[in-house]
Amino acid sequence: MARPQTDHEAAAEKLLAAAEELVRERGPVQITITDIANACGMSQSNVYRFFPSKEALWEAFAERWFRELNEIMEEVVASDLEPREKLYQFFARRLIVKKARFEEDPDYFNSCMILGDEHRDVVMSYVDLADHYMAMILAEAIGAGEFKGMKVDRLMTLVNLMLAPFCDPVLMVRYRGATPENLRYVIDAIFEGFGEADAVAPKEMEPLRIAS
Amino acid sequence: MARPQTDHEAAAEKLLAAAEELVRERGPVQITITDIANACGMSQSNVYRFFPSKEALWEAFAERWFRELNEIMEEVVASDLEPREKLYQFFARRLIVKKARFEEDPDYFNSCMILGDEHRDVVMSYVDLADHYMAMILAEAIGAGEFKGMKVDRLMTLVNLMLAPFCDPVLMVRYRGATPENLRYVIDAIFEGFGEADAVAPKEMEPLRIAS
Repeated sequence: MARPQTDHEAAAEKLLAAAEELVRERGPVQITITDIANACGMSQSNVYRFFPSKEALWEAFAERWFRELNEIMEEVVASDLEPREKLYQFFARRLIVKKARFEEDPDYFNSCMILGDEHRDVVMSYVDLADHYMAMILAEAIGAGEFKGMKVDRLMTLVNLMLAPFCDPVLMVRYRGATPENLRYVIDAIFEGFGEADAVAPKEMEPLRIAS
Repeated sequence: MARPQTDHEAAAEKLLAAAEELVRERGPVQITITDIANACGMSQSNVYRFFPSKEALWEAFAERWFRELNEIMEEVVASDLEPREKLYQFFARRLIVKKARFEEDPDYFNSCMILGDEHRDVVMSYVDLADHYMAMILAEAIGAGEFKGMKVDRLMTLVNLMLAPFCDPVLMVRYRGATPENLRYVIDAIFEGFGEADAVAPKEMEPLRIAS
C-alpha cells in the first residue's frame, strides 16, 4: 500500500486513522469533525485545512478503505495472466482481503457497510471503477475467442449476478460458501460450465506477473 | 392453490388473512392474537382453538406464504422436462411469483422478510425443503451424464451461490438484473458455460407436463 509522501499527507492519514478508531469504538453514528480533531489533539479549523467538509473526510475515508482493493484490481489487470485466471484473481484476491477485514473486526466491518449506504454515491464510483476493470478482462477473454455471440453488457450483468456472493461484502458474510475455492468453480463455469467437472478441478492461485 | 376444505380450515384461513391485512397496514411489529381476534370479530380463546400460540400462528402464516412456491417446486420436480429445463423452471417460476409479490406491495413484502428473520427456524425448514427438491433435479442431471466428477454437495453449494440473486428474495430486489431471461443464461452456464454463447441463447419457457 502506498505510504503518505508529504507532511500534509501524513497529517491527513493521521486524521483518517483517528476517524477509523472512533468508528471502531462507537459505530458509524454521530462522529463529528470536532471528535476527530480532539482525538488528534488538533484544532477544528486545522482539520478543515485537510478536509474542507465532513463529506470530504468521509470521501477520503472511503478512498482509504478501497485503496488496497483498487491496487489489487490494477495489478491483476496489468498482469500477463490468462483471461480466466485474471478474472479469478480479480475476485479472489479482493474476497480474501474483505473476508480478513470482516474477521478481524466484524462490528467495524458492518459499521463501514452502514457508512457506505449513507455515502452511496461515493461507493458507486468505486463499483463503477471495478466494472470498468472487469470489462477490460472480459474484453481480453473475448479477444481470445471466448463468449462468442455474447454482448459485453449482458456478460457484465451475468458475471456480476453469478459472483454477487463473492463480491458484495454484505453477501460475502451472509453466504458461508463464498470461498476462494468455490469461486474457482464458478469462474470455470462461466467459461465452460460444470458439464465435465474434471476440467474444472480447483487449482492453486498462479503468481502475478506484470505484462511487458 | 389448494382451497380450504373444512369449516375449521376456512376459519383458520380467515384468521391468517386478517393477520396479513394487519401486517399490510402496520408492518410486522407488535401484532397480537387479540388484534387478530378483533379483526375477525372472534374471541381470543376461540382463536387459540385454531392457533394454540402466537408462534403457531406465524408458522401457519409462513406456510401460507410458501404454499404456492412449494407447489411450483413439486410440479416442476414431478414433470417430464429435461433436467436443465427443470432446473431453470424450478427457479424461474418462483422468481416470477416472488417478483410479482414484491411489485404488488413492496412494504408488505419487506415486512414479510422481517417476519422471516424473526422466525428463522421456520423459514429454514422451507429452505431445506427447496434444497431437497433441487438435489433431486441435480441427481437427475447427474444420472443423465452431467457434472461428471462433481460431488452433489459441492454442486448444491455452487448452484445456490450462483443463483443467489435469483432466489434469495432480499437479493432479488437488490439486483435488478435478476430476471428470468438472465436466469436462463446462468442455468446454461452451469451446464456448459458462456464459452460459446450461440449455444445459450434465451428461449421461451417450455410447458410443464407431469412425468408418467
